[in-house]
Amino acid sequence: MRKGEETKQSILLHAARLASRIGLEAMTIGHLAEDLAMSKSGLFAHFGSKETLQLEVLEFTAQMFLEEVVRPAFQEEPGLPRIRALFEHWLRWAETNFEGGCPYVQATVEFDDRPGPVRDLLEVRQREWLEGLAESARRAKMAGHFGEDLDPDQFAFEFYSLLLGYHHAARMLHDPQAEARVRRAVDQLLDHCR
Amino acid sequence: MRKGEETKQSILLHAARLASRIGLEAMTIGHLAEDLAMSKSGLFAHFGSKETLQLEVLEFTAQMFLEEVVRPAFQEEPGLPRIRALFEHWLRWAETNFEGGCPYVQATVEFDDRPGPVRDLLEVRQREWLEGLAESARRAKMAGHFGEDLDPDQFAFEFYSLLLGYHHAARMLHDPQAEARVRRAVDQLLDHCR
Repeated sequence: MRKGEETKQSILLHAARLASRIGLEAMTIGHLAEDLAMSKSGLFAHFGSKETLQLEVLEFTAQMFLEEVVRPAFQEEPGLPRIRALFEHWLRWAETNFEGGCPYVQATVEFDDRPGPVRDLLEVRQREWLEGLAESARRAKMAGHFGEDLDPDQFAFEFYSLLLGYHHAARMLHDPQAEARVRRAVDQLLDHCR
Repeated sequence: MRKGEETKQSILLHAARLASRIGLEAMTIGHLAEDLAMSKSGLFAHFGSKETLQLEVLEFTAQMFLEEVVRPAFQEEPGLPRIRALFEHWLRWAETNFEGGCPYVQATVEFDDRPGPVRDLLEVRQREWLEGLAESARRAKMAGHFGEDLDPDQFAFEFYSLLLGYHHAARMLHDPQAEARVRRAVDQLLDHCR
């Protein structure tokens, strides 16, 4: 990786962490410059505008998600083992990387009513995630792990709802039972899908 | 209601709607003054500070929630009928009043990592809601609608997860199936609790 590219990646990681705490809209180039002890003009040279910065932070985060959640899960057998791995890696990914939780959960609520390129990108990436979950359920049906009458999109909806519920219980309520609850609920859902 | 109080209530309704769209933090007194064609100093006279405005918007919204979701549901028999009514009124309440969805869902993600009075209030009100759901499940056990081994807090977690999933599917993904999916999932959950 070239030096300029390395610098950019480390700025993006910092920005993604900041956005997970305070939100993508509240994160200004000035704020970021102060945190990184860089000049605002230096940062502008990398990103040009706040919107470009927001878009690049989201793409950077999507790439991390691919590497830390999707790719390792795809090393498991298709079907139930892969779905269980997606769940385990998802649980760990936000906790390990982001003090403020998954930046997509944060940005989605923040931008759902703000039309524009940031919302468009969020919608595309969130659809991909839900379609990926539905596809995993289809594979589980093919492998005989899930029943033939299972609706893969309904599975994706219910599975992701539980992850959002976990995010809420862990981050807003600081519920020490959050992880135990989501594990129990996911186990029940997977049982129910057989 | 006195004239001053009426004015304040109508400012708060407008502010709650604005916050549901753009977020509680992005909503400034200047922004609100422009929308309402009032002077900033007039608004400051009502609220004193942005934080007070945020807190009052949240209390106003909690009051609306009590009147439009909780109170009508409590006119139903305790147990399953009341839980079904809570679900129906919850679905309608955000759609009818707030262009940007439930202000608490929005504010919760926005403030989960910002310690202070706003976060404290959100946590208290969200806990009350989850405890209320758990209490409804306890009533359903007493009435014999739910099984004796049902964990009321686990029920509250799963029920609210589905509402959060619906919020995401309807508002971010504009999924035309969102309502059908959450209805199906809640039916299954209630069946499972018997």
